[in-house]
Amino acid sequence: MTITLYDLAGAEANRRFSPFCWRTRMALAHKGLAVETVPWGFTEKDRLPKPNAGRVPVIVDDATVVHDSTAIADYLEKRYADRPSLFGGEIGRALARFVQNWTETVLQAGIVPLVVLDIHRHARPQDQDYFRRSREERFGRTLEEVVRDREARLPAFRASLDPLRRTVERQDFVSGKAPAYADYTIFGAFQWARAISDFELLAADDPVRAWRGRMLDLYGGLARGTPAYGD
Amino acid sequence: MTITLYDLAGAEANRRFSPFCWRTRMALAHKGLAVETVPWGFTEKDRLPKPNAGRVPVIVDDATVVHDSTAIADYLEKRYADRPSLFGGEIGRALARFVQNWTETVLQAGIVPLVVLDIHRHARPQDQDYFRRSREERFGRTLEEVVRDREARLPAFRASLDPLRRTVERQDFVSGKAPAYADYTIFGAFQWARAISDFELLAADDPVRAWRGRMLDLYGGLARGTPAYGD
Repeated sequence: MTITLYDLAGAEANRRFSPFCWRTRMALAHKGLAVETVPWGFTEKDRLPKPNAGRVPVIVDDATVVHDSTAIADYLEKRYADRPSLFGGEIGRALARFVQNWTETVLQAGIVPLVVLDIHRHARPQDQDYFRRSREERFGRTLEEVVRDREARLPAFRASLDPLRRTVERQDFVSGKAPAYADYTIFGAFQWARAISDFELLAADDPVRAWRGRMLDLYGGLARGTPAYGD
Repeated sequence: MTITLYDLAGAEANRRFSPFCWRTRMALAHKGLAVETVPWGFTEKDRLPKPNAGRVPVIVDDATVVHDSTAIADYLEKRYADRPSLFGGEIGRALARFVQNWTETVLQAGIVPLVVLDIHRHARPQDQDYFRRSREERFGRTLEEVVRDREARLPAFRASLDPLRRTVERQDFVSGKAPAYADYTIFGAFQWARAISDFELLAADDPVRAWRGRMLDLYGGLARGTPAYGD
């Protein structure tokens, strides 16, 4: 039984850059489940299966439609309980939420103002207006203004990664000796950045970069299968 | 069998304010273990049992001496494996390290420059010189200068709690429905602040404050048993 994943795509259909879809993609691989992805553009709200929140990821597993990366992870953990666990139990699941909240409020919030113009460049032409308008409204500035002094802001961004850095200095993965859902959550943010921007977020000798390399190597180099910049 | 805990004390022997000792205190209660605490001052390096790193917490369990809060938690989890788990398995333990690294690099690092002068005030008279000298060397400024504009820095500190805030808005404890070691790690930092400073870190309606209240209520109000400020 192959699961269908609606996956955000750029102007090139194979450039997949949603941090949330990458969480799901890695979680499906972790569970050893076959997947067929459907490239989807920001403005194709009506092309998603019902019930439809207008956002990806959405999976269709036989007759079951699940949207939202967190709901999908919970669904997979329960439906495929006999396969390797994404969370390692209730406490692990709760703490993965803390990691998710850090990822969204610190990591992704820190990445957006560094690469938002690059996202625009890689969006499908028919999605660019929507993307620019919605994001400029959020920032109250043009995308060009948002990224202008990004070099100067890079040291503060890198410093904000200290909790992650200290963790992967001392253990191979955030989840311990082997990767699990918390790793996929954080990795999704870095994969998003490298899929759409040549602005390197990480110094060459950063332990976070070594961890990112380990994540890229997982599942036969799954995450290297999309066009991207850098290592 | 009662475990002995060497516990940092202030000028009043019952004012216990080490964030690291509070992690251990709560972990011992979680495991349902009886404890006798020995108040200890910053400069009493020679009063600790051997082997001795000159810091607390240190526990003595029968003939076993364990120092460092993380090593103690690992020891308790293994030695008392039949009692409620602190981590809920290997993934939970790994993710608790991420929470610990966030606590130390963001939370505690953010609290110190708000309350460091208050720590000095509560230290034993014979420890004050040591404390002032070592901390002023670290900051390169007097303690008075470090805390001067703390009101102005409070909004940024509160914003840095977003990952925690979002977590405890959606679940009672960081570790899920019930508290576990990741909660004790974070709580230690807040308990440290409230034991030595009347500078309230949290707004009255902050979900983090409600969580702190739940932590204070645990184990018969264990953490309310030390002199402190506020709720």
